[in-house]
Formats: sequence, C-alpha cells, structure tokens
Amino acid sequence: MGSELLSYIRDYAEKNNVKMGLVFAIGSIKNPKVGYFDEKSEGYITIDLKGTYELLSAQGNISIKDGRPFPHVHVIVGDRTGKCFGGHLIEAEVFVAEVTIVELSGTPLERNISVKGLSLWAEER
Amino acid sequence: MGSELLSYIRDYAEKNNVKMGLVFAIGSIKNPKVGYFDEKSEGYITIDLKGTYELLSAQGNISIKDGRPFPHVHVIVGDRTGKCFGGHLIEAEVFVAEVTIVELSGTPLERNISVKGLSLWAEER
Amino acid sequence: MGSELLSYIRDYAEKNNVKMGLVFAIGSIKNPKVGYFDEKSEGYITIDLKGTYELLSAQGNISIKDGRPFPHVHVIVGDRTGKCFGGHLIEAEVFVAEVTIVELSGTPLERNISVKGLSLWAEER
Repeated sequence: MGSELLSYIRDYAEKNNVKMGLVFAIGSIKNPKVGYFDEKSEGYITIDLKGTYELLSAQGNISIKDGRPFPHVHVIVGDRTGKCFGGHLIEAEVFVAEVTIVELSGTPLERNISVKGLSLWAEER
Repeated sequence: MGSELLSYIRDYAEKNNVKMGLVFAIGSIKNPKVGYFDEKSEGYITIDLKGTYELLSAQGNISIKDGRPFPHVHVIVGDRTGKCFGGHLIEAEVFVAEVTIVELSGTPLERNISVKGLSLWAEER
Repeated sequence: MGSELLSYIRDYAEKNNVKMGLVFAIGSIKNPKVGYFDEKSEGYITIDLKGTYELLSAQGNISIKDGRPFPHVHVIVGDRTGKCFGGHLIEAEVFVAEVTIVELSGTPLERNISVKGLSLWAEER
C-alpha cells in the first residue's frame, strides 16, 4: 500500500534480475496517470484520473532498455459506477495490488529501435 | 452455458486441487454483478449490470482463504455499442466462456491478513 | 506496423505450428472493428471504431478450427480521453503491437461444436 505501481514493478524486476517477462495485475489504485500516444506530436498525452479506481486489468511486459529492466504496462480502471478508463500506465498510487510477473527465459528483448517517438523492439522473434 | 462464472472457477479449482494460479477468461455473460471497493465504508458497492455483454477481459488469481481455493477476479464487459463496464466479479451467468486457469507451483499464497475490510496476502513474495 | 492484427496472429500460429495457446497484446491500433454477439440474431453485430486507439488489452486463445490454428481474441481500446471500447476482435490495423503467444502443449482444443451461430469447444477439459 502506498507504493507507486510502475516503479514497484521496475524495482522488483531489477532486484530479481527479470530481463524479459509478462506483467499482470488487479487491485485498487489512486489517481492513476495514463497516456495516449498521439501520432501527430509523436508523444504521449497525459490523462489525469482523479480518485480511487478498481484496477480491472494491467497487461504488459518487461524488456531491456538502456541496459535495465523496463516495464511497459497498459491499464484499465473502473469507477464506482463501473465506467472504464485506461491508457499506457505512467504512474498510479497503489491502494492494493496483486501483481504477477511471469519471467520468460531466452535472449531478452531489447528496446533499441526508435521510431516516431516510440522505443521499440526489432519486428519479430 | 448457464453456470455461474465465479463459482465455476472456484469449483474447478477445488476439484482439481489448484491452490495457486492465474485466471483468464473471455466469452459472453449475462447480468454480471461487479463490485467497487469503497475505502470509506470498507466494503464493496455492488454494480448491477443488466443484459448480455461480451466478456472482454477476466483477470485474476487463485489463492487459499480459510483453507480452500479462493478466486479473486476482475472483469471488463462490453455492450452492443462497444461501451465498457467493469469491476470486481461478484457473479455472472455464463452464456459462453473460455476460461484458462494457469496453475502455479510453490508454496500457495494465503489470504490471512485482514486490512480495512479486505482479505489480503502478506506483502511480497 | 501496418499489418492487420488478427491475421498476423493467425499467420504466426500457422507458421510456428501453434495448435493451442493463449494470446495477449498491448500497443496502439487503428480503425478497429469489433463484434458483439447478438443472441437473438445468432450473429455478431459489427462495431466500427474510427481513429487511433491505445490497445489496452487483448486476451484470447488459439485452438483448431477446420484443421487450422484459429485465434479468438477480445480487445479493449482507449481513446485520447481515456474512454474505453471493446469487443470480439474482427480486424484492426496495427500501429504498434507487442503480442505474446503462450503455446500450450497437450491435445489441442478443437472448435467442433456449433451452437446458436457460435463455434465452440466441448464443454470441459
């Protein structure tokens, strides 16, 4: 409780040397900031969600960026009426979160390609 | 068809002795009841969704509570216009569901901590 | 970039002989077409979403239909305000997508049952 979700996942991966993996989470989070990638400006628009939300889905991956484990996570949250909001996870305060990190073996994927403001993997593995 | 989704998952886990696992599902469900955890009252507000919805995402886990397999699942559903609703799964009638339970080995997690009306695991594993 | 997401998954499964598996993906997609299964007409209503969306969740599976790998995927997308839409994936142009296919071993599931316009697996495994 009280941690920031994305840095929690990054710190966990770093501490446990997870170089490639999948991320899933459910729980309850506060004041999530999520991004929408705007192709025109080649950057993320920040969507500032105020309040406490059910964390309905977190789906993402861990790969290597600049030599360190880097989580990329998209989230969907629900408000007290059941309405859903979501985006690319920028930050969120954890009320409670049940996070699963599935470590994948093999040569880690690396974000070493930069296209239109996005840091990507090579195309297919 | 016709089963109740959450008890189906619990019964399956119990019958197959799944003590720790991940849950995923897609399909089509009817009259889902979902919850939003209200920090103030320390309890779930029930959101009663009437009708038939696409089950767009079910994400959750199985752990041990009071000595028995206990599923905790969050769902997102879509209506005929594509609009999304979701919450903590309380119950839903299955029209069709394709459920995957990924059994995890190791010492099962146990919900043996009670905080603010929530039944939780110990903090990190 | 530029591929169609569902046929990309099917082609990948076919090329790599994935007969049973789970599908997850996040990314950014354009002009997704998603379906809502209408019980009355026993067919899918097509929901035509125009524009570019964050792909917040793709959850699905691969099984065998008519002797070939067949992906069944449900998606949730978010617009630039964070609003969510979703359904049964019919097609979507990929802007970027990070797709994970988890291959499952064992006897592949086969969609060999036809009920109310849906092609289903036998009930439990």
